[in-house]
Amino acid sequence: MERQGGEGARTGRPRDSRVDASILAATRQVLAETGYVRLTVDAVAARAGVGKAAIYRRYATKQEMVFAATVHSMTLETPADAGSFSADLAALIDDILATLGNPVALVTVPGLLADVTADAGLTARFRQTFVERQRDCVKEVLDRAVRRGELGEAPDLDVVHAMLVGPVFAWLFMMGRQDRGAFAAELAARLAAAFTR
Amino acid sequence: MERQGGEGARTGRPRDSRVDASILAATRQVLAETGYVRLTVDAVAARAGVGKAAIYRRYATKQEMVFAATVHSMTLETPADAGSFSADLAALIDDILATLGNPVALVTVPGLLADVTADAGLTARFRQTFVERQRDCVKEVLDRAVRRGELGEAPDLDVVHAMLVGPVFAWLFMMGRQDRGAFAAELAARLAAAFTR
Repeated sequence: MERQGGEGARTGRPRDSRVDASILAATRQVLAETGYVRLTVDAVAARAGVGKAAIYRRYATKQEMVFAATVHSMTLETPADAGSFSADLAALIDDILATLGNPVALVTVPGLLADVTADAGLTARFRQTFVERQRDCVKEVLDRAVRRGELGEAPDLDVVHAMLVGPVFAWLFMMGRQDRGAFAAELAARLAAAFTR
Repeated sequence: MERQGGEGARTGRPRDSRVDASILAATRQVLAETGYVRLTVDAVAARAGVGKAAIYRRYATKQEMVFAATVHSMTLETPADAGSFSADLAALIDDILATLGNPVALVTVPGLLADVTADAGLTARFRQTFVERQRDCVKEVLDRAVRRGELGEAPDLDVVHAMLVGPVFAWLFMMGRQDRGAFAAELAARLAAAFTR
């Protein structure tokens, strides 16, 4: 979860992971109390007991901080090899469902996405950090399946990515479904069938 | 596109489809000028040359009016039978890509979704009207495939719906992709494979 080589590498002193954790926890608390629209970086700094500069060294914008606190950090671990393409897909889908579907993310992500897509700078930054990291995880899952001989050649990465994260988003935010286990299993099985046929 | 049996059925006079069309056109004009957040029902009424009451007889909220003007009306036609499950899927995906991907919808849908998900009343209404209509189209496509013998039995309707609309949403709004033809064709082919295997 710790970003490597950022502030610490520049200043020569180690990154304080307690400060990282307090900022993320404070963001979640303030979100739960005031909601995303009324959350300010000042309120988070006060709650975390840090200066605003400590926040802006880590996150360029309020949106980036909120995304890191609710969905996933700027480093996202690739899930461990689960042994097969369909099991890897299921693990990745479980992970995305758990993060997008946590109670704070459920009430935060649509407003966050609206802000991000309304601003070209935020959009570019969001794609370079969070979307790219998630895409790297999908790529690793495809590469493993090719190495195992389950896929002849890797299919279009962005198509797989869209077919993996899009249905989770629709399930949670368009359909408002709370039940998740059977959905995750069926989506993984259908995707495995779609790409290995 | 005309809603049947609404105002006309209650009042005994025919629904004025020119008023319908002016309201939708005025909504798109005001959206293009001011954006979704600053759009008001007053501004749309003034632009369309109608009273606010004429708008509220048709749409309960600003959000509903904007959705109807940008994505699809409250009646959505089921696409004509294209002859096969994969061709029906391709037609439906083309349709969803064209509507969600039109220039006004691209800058409107994320803010609209944020407002809708932040309010339980709007959420319920949105699901009962727009999501249900789209779901009916997906159901018709599945029923046709069962009748043709392409599917043994219809798969879970909501899973198919999420796997159809979710990737389109992710492609346009998360990845910001402008290219569409190859994506629509591949998504249709992958979904047909996923469900007919």
